Amino acid sequence: MSQTNRQILLVEKPTGKLLPKNFKMAEATIPEPKDGEVLLRVLYISLDAANRAWMQGATYRAAVEANTVMAGGAIAEVIKSNDPGFAAGDLVFGDTGWQDYAAVRAKNLVKVPRIEPITNLLSVYGVAGLTAYFGLLNVGKPKAGETVVVSAAAGSVGSFVGQIAKIKGCRVVGIAGGKEKCDWLVSELGFDAAIDYKSQPVFKALKAAAPNGIDVYFDNVGGDIFEACLPNMNQHGRISCCGAVSAYDGAPPAHGPRGVPGLIVVKRLTVQGFIFTDFNDQRDAAMADLQSWVKAGKIKVQEDIISGLENTPKALIGLLAGENRGKRMVKV
Amino acid sequence: MSQTNRQILLVEKPTGKLLPKNFKMAEATIPEPKDGEVLLRVLYISLDAANRAWMQGATYRAAVEANTVMAGGAIAEVIKSNDPGFAAGDLVFGDTGWQDYAAVRAKNLVKVPRIEPITNLLSVYGVAGLTAYFGLLNVGKPKAGETVVVSAAAGSVGSFVGQIAKIKGCRVVGIAGGKEKCDWLVSELGFDAAIDYKSQPVFKALKAAAPNGIDVYFDNVGGDIFEACLPNMNQHGRISCCGAVSAYDGAPPAHGPRGVPGLIVVKRLTVQGFIFTDFNDQRDAAMADLQSWVKAGKIKVQEDIISGLENTPKALIGLLAGENRGKRMVKV
Repeated sequence: MSQTNRQILLVEKPTGKLLPKNFKMAEATIPEPKDGEVLLRVLYISLDAANRAWMQGATYRAAVEANTVMAGGAIAEVIKSNDPGFAAGDLVFGDTGWQDYAAVRAKNLVKVPRIEPITNLLSVYGVAGLTAYFGLLNVGKPKAGETVVVSAAAGSVGSFVGQIAKIKGCRVVGIAGGKEKCDWLVSELGFDAAIDYKSQPVFKALKAAAPNGIDVYFDNVGGDIFEACLPNMNQHGRISCCGAVSAYDGAPPAHGPRGVPGLIVVKRLTVQGFIFTDFNDQRDAAMADLQSWVKAGKIKVQEDIISGLENTPKALIGLLAGENRGKRMVKV
Repeated sequence: MSQTNRQILLVEKPTGKLLPKNFKMAEATIPEPKDGEVLLRVLYISLDAANRAWMQGATYRAAVEANTVMAGGAIAEVIKSNDPGFAAGDLVFGDTGWQDYAAVRAKNLVKVPRIEPITNLLSVYGVAGLTAYFGLLNVGKPKAGETVVVSAAAGSVGSFVGQIAKIKGCRVVGIAGGKEKCDWLVSELGFDAAIDYKSQPVFKALKAAAPNGIDVYFDNVGGDIFEACLPNMNQHGRISCCGAVSAYDGAPPAHGPRGVPGLIVVKRLTVQGFIFTDFNDQRDAAMADLQSWVKAGKIKVQEDIISGLENTPKALIGLLAGENRGKRMVKV
């Protein structure tokens, strides 16, 4: 065990785009777990657009404050446990923050099975896969033959949403940035169509790619793309609100999308926000489905693994700029 | 039977606020009903903010076009029927338009019971009452002890929403324009609090009037008031989208409310649009409830009856300006 604990601190909250200078590397001693706590060695840190939203203020969790270890979920191994529920060698998921070691209250940890590759615990069997699963099936409620549109489609959540929608017999249209990602969605992941929002107006492209209208829009981005989808929604359509990445990296937007709430009334839409833990009671069934689909080759798992704790800030900055394909994480 | 059929035509679609000059009175002969049609004598014309929205374009119905009889729902009596489902003397609800007589296809009419006062068929037992009932109970799903906020609270739908929410054991806050309306909501209709949006900022007033946050927001107006309610919503709150009157009388708004979809995600809200006919299968049960509540004095029915077909345009213009209290209609 190395004697120091490398940590990445958020030294100041960004006012505009997130920059490397908003972070700094520090060293601390490895903490001693208190009663009810567990000492963890962090293995893989999950990078998510939501990390940036946490800097803006309280969300479904307290805001991340300046001059603290940057928050983040991770897969970690138990080194020492002061709680009867955990033992050395256990693998867990929890908010360890961006550091080598963390002492975390046991009640905030979830024990996870030791599967191979372990990184799948952050992608298809982690927040990304479960978010896609519950947000599509429990919130969007697609029926076979319906049209599902997903934004940030080449991202970790979006890539699973589209593949699950295909499994359920839907027509699937992905919205992503750049021709390469769009080609990948169609040729590798089996999407029916993909729209490159950087090269064409989304509203018109949707008319062509979803000629029967949109029944379910899985929204990862908010903003202009949300606005472009709204008039293309079918009556009684559903919008599953997973995130609003277009609004995270900068000042909050001055206004919301046009057509809210007018089009929600006219089209009798259901627009619902969620986070995956809202459906914790159905987690086992979801995991079983995901595992069977991966085993059957119906879901391809794309991971984007970056090495080195010191690279975590630029890995997040790059994710916010749309660099990654599939689930991005850092091997500590 | 008078020999002519007075009609009010929409002579041009308004570009800004609706004005008397957008209409003109005309005379036609009384139409002869074709096969499958029914000749109606119009008794009471319903005035609704939605009438103005129909002029903007297709909604849940085709747009109202210039140089046609202005569309509108009404209670009418069957004079002559060429359909086996209707007989002279029957009372019906349907879109007769703003005129003395109309020949309407039988399949577009709903037979209604001959109750007294007949005007209740347009208020508590008509679109207003059923919209309040279904939009609150089936879409908003309030539980006893929760806080319900309703906008346009002194209007026809809003006044019923608040009273039904009280029956269900909720804390009820109404938002309306002017002290008189607000006093009436509290002292006559039993609302717990009322906010005069013309005299105070709604966001702050809501913090005081709904100290435990908002569980259900019944939205009749959209725009700034929708935006003021959003950050005051509780987790897993519901927004029942009934109308967007703030957006009807003028050019369409350039942007939607701030916080969409960000706050929908963070608070895991369900925002759902509806029109009352979405719940036609539960209409009998709704009518039975409404009748028992009126009989028991738990719902007070406020009607605002204007006499004379020729006054219909200015009655609608006044309704859009918030003149009325309760259900406005025209006795033809």
